[in-house]
Amino acid sequence: MPGEFEPHERCWMIWPQRRDTFRYGAKLAQKAFVEFAKTISRFEPVTVCVNGDQYDTAFMAVGEYAQVIELSNDDFWMRDTGATFVTNGSEIRGISWGFNAWGGLTDGLYFPWDKDEKVADKMCGLINADCYKPEDFILEGGSIHVDGEGTLVVTESCLLSEGRNPQLSREEIEEVLKEYLNVTKIIWLKQGIYLDETNGHVDNIFNFVRPGECVLAWTDDESDPQYAISKECYDILSSETDAMGRKLIIHKLHIPNPIYLTEEEREGMDQVCEFWPPEAGTRLPASYVNYYTANHAVIFPKFDDEYDAAAEQLLKKIYPEREVIGISCHEMFLGGGNIHCATQQQPISGEDH
Amino acid sequence: MPGEFEPHERCWMIWPQRRDTFRYGAKLAQKAFVEFAKTISRFEPVTVCVNGDQYDTAFMAVGEYAQVIELSNDDFWMRDTGATFVTNGSEIRGISWGFNAWGGLTDGLYFPWDKDEKVADKMCGLINADCYKPEDFILEGGSIHVDGEGTLVVTESCLLSEGRNPQLSREEIEEVLKEYLNVTKIIWLKQGIYLDETNGHVDNIFNFVRPGECVLAWTDDESDPQYAISKECYDILSSETDAMGRKLIIHKLHIPNPIYLTEEEREGMDQVCEFWPPEAGTRLPASYVNYYTANHAVIFPKFDDEYDAAAEQLLKKIYPEREVIGISCHEMFLGGGNIHCATQQQPISGEDH
Repeated sequence: MPGEFEPHERCWMIWPQRRDTFRYGAKLAQKAFVEFAKTISRFEPVTVCVNGDQYDTAFMAVGEYAQVIELSNDDFWMRDTGATFVTNGSEIRGISWGFNAWGGLTDGLYFPWDKDEKVADKMCGLINADCYKPEDFILEGGSIHVDGEGTLVVTESCLLSEGRNPQLSREEIEEVLKEYLNVTKIIWLKQGIYLDETNGHVDNIFNFVRPGECVLAWTDDESDPQYAISKECYDILSSETDAMGRKLIIHKLHIPNPIYLTEEEREGMDQVCEFWPPEAGTRLPASYVNYYTANHAVIFPKFDDEYDAAAEQLLKKIYPEREVIGISCHEMFLGGGNIHCATQQQPISGEDH
Repeated sequence: MPGEFEPHERCWMIWPQRRDTFRYGAKLAQKAFVEFAKTISRFEPVTVCVNGDQYDTAFMAVGEYAQVIELSNDDFWMRDTGATFVTNGSEIRGISWGFNAWGGLTDGLYFPWDKDEKVADKMCGLINADCYKPEDFILEGGSIHVDGEGTLVVTESCLLSEGRNPQLSREEIEEVLKEYLNVTKIIWLKQGIYLDETNGHVDNIFNFVRPGECVLAWTDDESDPQYAISKECYDILSSETDAMGRKLIIHKLHIPNPIYLTEEEREGMDQVCEFWPPEAGTRLPASYVNYYTANHAVIFPKFDDEYDAAAEQLLKKIYPEREVIGISCHEMFLGGGNIHCATQQQPISGEDH
């Protein structure tokens, strides 16, 4: 599996539509999404997958910037339901992990998830790519980050959660990941961003900038529960070496000030289960690390917060070769994820590279 | 619009599923379809479009032979709902005609047809081709045949029917066709095959073998109502010249003996409207002309009839450069169409040619 910072053939996304994931019939999220898709399309081709009933709406909104394709889905988060692409340098193939809405009947966020379960298979079909289907193995794309040189970073809170693969030991999970992703070293962080309802996906707290170099969501406020989590991640990453034996350069990317779901925002959303949406007043898992690395660009979420500028500054410093663009994605963020969660890169296969 | 006999990029089809179009939940038609798709896939890539609820079924059945893509549809007949492709020699574009289930509220065969209406647009989206959408103009792909050199053949019974474009005169219809298909000569046959419920699509009675040469469905039985129809077509075609000023060479392709819908067949189908399915005992519009011209092959329908052999013999004679393959498609034929109706060729654009 190539690193996200390696060249892309295109970016896959899903049209936002759920009335419980987003507020006011997802109309505000759709508006934010259009800006988002338009921005990515400046750097790489974008394919937007959409349910049949919203095809016209999506086509009229983003058809100018993206290829719009009918593909049934239950929710918006292409990072988690889409195929994970791997390449041997000459051919691209997909991995269709099992998907159970972040926890299945244990602590999943909606039911049913049968359409989402097939998203990855259909993506592979659309590009005529062979598709691996690991048997009885639940994983979301947002719970893994690789450096493309044999290193994988994950979180225990997610991969060892009761709602994923409780029948497998940590070692057995490692075996599957090593086999399918062709990695040799797995670094286990303890948990992700505080109160992240995905059981703490790694992609909200950690990302590879390039091999040997990474960013970590951070806070200087020691009274914030996030502090202990980030500090623990920092200690683990500092003490580890990657698959190539390198010590990692770690950049601390300060999170925004706490953001809480307002009463008015909560009232605009349908209730889908006991876990979603969260109650008004709940702190939302905001992090600048949930950015997307596009061809020649980094697109990161802004929160209209005082830390926005610092995030932009740091990203510009560590990505001198890329354009760094901040987007206000509050409406998408209300859905529980952010920019990275909404995307899935399709790497260029060796032949085209 | 290139002739069907020109090189194809691929063949588009739709997975059969309607329980009123086909009998016994379409299971028998699906079985026949798999053989059909498999045969075409020997000569050109096949893409099978399927509704989300039948995706797995279709994938398991034809995934080995074809690309299977989710694409919502109301019925099986890709020839009529699919895009008509045109090329300027370097780029391919689609035409998305209006579709109203062969007659809309006048004498259409089902309601609603909103998914079918979008099939052509979505096909264009899938191949990133621009799409022309003639305004307020109903047409099915099965009602036109071109020679790729400026000649178009149609039937009056279909194109001038009350259920298509009653607001347009024959001359206005010609204008639209000339503009979109870039043809200069339109030959109007009076009607198609006897009792053809499409109001007599041309593709069941006439086809171009190559520029200047065609086949016409025929019967020697002067007591058959088909005789007068075919004779009239013959007289028109004999007296006309094509766009290049050539007299047409006409090959008579004898129809099979009359085939009637049996009581048992009729009982296996749901009723959808007053026009469909026909009553038991109704004669079905059987014709060998409803064949598909694939790359290096001609695939024609067999009816387990004494005329099968003569059809094969004639096709082999007039297509010496192609493999001629007969397929028993009775179960698909019960749905009111046949091999040609089930396909839509995507021509190779000039660049790849």
